[in-house]
Amino acid sequence: MNVHTVSRPICIIGLGLIGGSLLRDLHAAGHPTFGYNRTTSRAEEAREEGFDVSSSLTETLARAEKEGALIVIAVPVPGFPHILDRIANEAPSCGFTDVASVKSAILQAVKERGLEGRYVGSHPMAGTADSGWKASTTGLFQGRAWVVCYDQLEEGDVSDAWAALWGDVAHMAGLVGAEVIPTLADSHDAAVARISHLPHVLAEALSVVGDNGGALSLSLAAGSYTDATRVAGSKASLVRAMCETNAPKLIEVLDEALELLQGARNDLAGDQPSLEELVDAGYRSRIRFDARSGLRPVLRVHPGADGWVSILRQAEAIGSRVEVF
Amino acid sequence: MNVHTVSRPICIIGLGLIGGSLLRDLHAAGHPTFGYNRTTSRAEEAREEGFDVSSSLTETLARAEKEGALIVIAVPVPGFPHILDRIANEAPSCGFTDVASVKSAILQAVKERGLEGRYVGSHPMAGTADSGWKASTTGLFQGRAWVVCYDQLEEGDVSDAWAALWGDVAHMAGLVGAEVIPTLADSHDAAVARISHLPHVLAEALSVVGDNGGALSLSLAAGSYTDATRVAGSKASLVRAMCETNAPKLIEVLDEALELLQGARNDLAGDQPSLEELVDAGYRSRIRFDARSGLRPVLRVHPGADGWVSILRQAEAIGSRVEVF
Repeated sequence: MNVHTVSRPICIIGLGLIGGSLLRDLHAAGHPTFGYNRTTSRAEEAREEGFDVSSSLTETLARAEKEGALIVIAVPVPGFPHILDRIANEAPSCGFTDVASVKSAILQAVKERGLEGRYVGSHPMAGTADSGWKASTTGLFQGRAWVVCYDQLEEGDVSDAWAALWGDVAHMAGLVGAEVIPTLADSHDAAVARISHLPHVLAEALSVVGDNGGALSLSLAAGSYTDATRVAGSKASLVRAMCETNAPKLIEVLDEALELLQGARNDLAGDQPSLEELVDAGYRSRIRFDARSGLRPVLRVHPGADGWVSILRQAEAIGSRVEVF
Repeated sequence: MNVHTVSRPICIIGLGLIGGSLLRDLHAAGHPTFGYNRTTSRAEEAREEGFDVSSSLTETLARAEKEGALIVIAVPVPGFPHILDRIANEAPSCGFTDVASVKSAILQAVKERGLEGRYVGSHPMAGTADSGWKASTTGLFQGRAWVVCYDQLEEGDVSDAWAALWGDVAHMAGLVGAEVIPTLADSHDAAVARISHLPHVLAEALSVVGDNGGALSLSLAAGSYTDATRVAGSKASLVRAMCETNAPKLIEVLDEALELLQGARNDLAGDQPSLEELVDAGYRSRIRFDARSGLRPVLRVHPGADGWVSILRQAEAIGSRVEVF
């Protein structure tokens, strides 16, 4: 039994891998959902599969406003300024969220337009190396973390409407099988720099170094190279957008990695080449990660209740998921 | 129909992931195969599964000598000096190969003992993050590259016996479904530094940087981190042995990676953060790799025939597999 209920229709702007997969799962869950995709032929394909999709942003936002929908912005990061302006003007009553892989820069853009009272940032930790509507699939979010940000609550009093919006975003994530992890935008960006953006940068570098070895290297490449370079096959513009938008945090963790790698290089260049320090530390870290997998602790929270911010803070500190009631 | 025939029994020394999986596949193919494992309880487990396994190295080498077996050394690299000394003394007529992930250091140890006339180095490009007999499995080598070295042929005339040994090692690889790639030891070590040892070093560093982010980072980690740190879960002593034994080649490619990553760091720190150079190069490299996958060209070679060295050189240059007839 699915206990998640979202109190309004959902309107998804942008039907790529994430937006498209969300449309599929919400539709399958029987929740009223409609969407917009800029590319007419993609919208047409989605309609042929039975989805309620338009290629007119004007019409879509008018409908969202009329129906009091929760808007989900699922376009690439460079498209945000335009979409935010359009929402401000054409859907002035709607609450909205987004699914971008950076959160501070988006929150700042939202605040510049004075829209923070009806915005809750979010980010599903799901994806593949593929992108676009054709890559969208059902079940993409099952068991995955879905970050829901609470900066406005941390910064002061919030309205009942904002608390209800936070609850609806969390329930939407639950409706598609994801686990809600509350964070501040800054903590999110620091964490994903480590576990998503740095892996992308390392994958790009490894991909180049392997290719530099020519035909023999690529012919011998097996699991370790294939797995570690997989995300280098992601669309370059998407990788660039997320890394560049999170540059300050990414630089910090890239410096950590550079120090470790430079240390390993020096250890290898000694009279007795040794990787003891790096390999022992890496092994212990990976074992800790394995031990955690699939075992997120859970806290329960009621949006708007007294002290709910402290539950969210506590969940963030231990990487816990929250159940909204 | 399997066209591969090995002209003698096969004796496997060391039944970890590689040796154990080889034993399983050769046994399943109906080829006379016996093995040795130092740990008595592991040898017992293998016998209970119906394999012909001893925990006496003395008895195993005596049997190999008596039956004229092809010996496969499948112990970790630090164990090689002892095993080579024992083979020199106790199986003085046997041809032998090995499956270690470095080839120059092993060839040097073989030459120091004057055994190069009955040795052919080899390396199956297969593995998982697990190790030991319990991790061994059937089908591990199916479709994988299996390097077979030809240094002695490159360096001068070889005996008919050495040519026959080379053919048997290649046929053994074919018997378990692998594709034979001929290389010199030095070319092999340079290539695997790029596509195996560097991935391990990057995985260790990424594993540490992710763990440095604490509970929240590990809770948010998804596919890119999981895939890219997988091999950091490999047994530390095995990772160290292969990387440290190949230190000169690994340093070269680590320097290439460090230069790329330092460049990316500087590009991110500018007024207009940009990863265009690295991401475009990484993407192009990965696409080239994808395009090659599963499409190794094939050359045919008859060991000992006039000019067979030039076919092996040509195969190495293009990363081609060879079919032995």
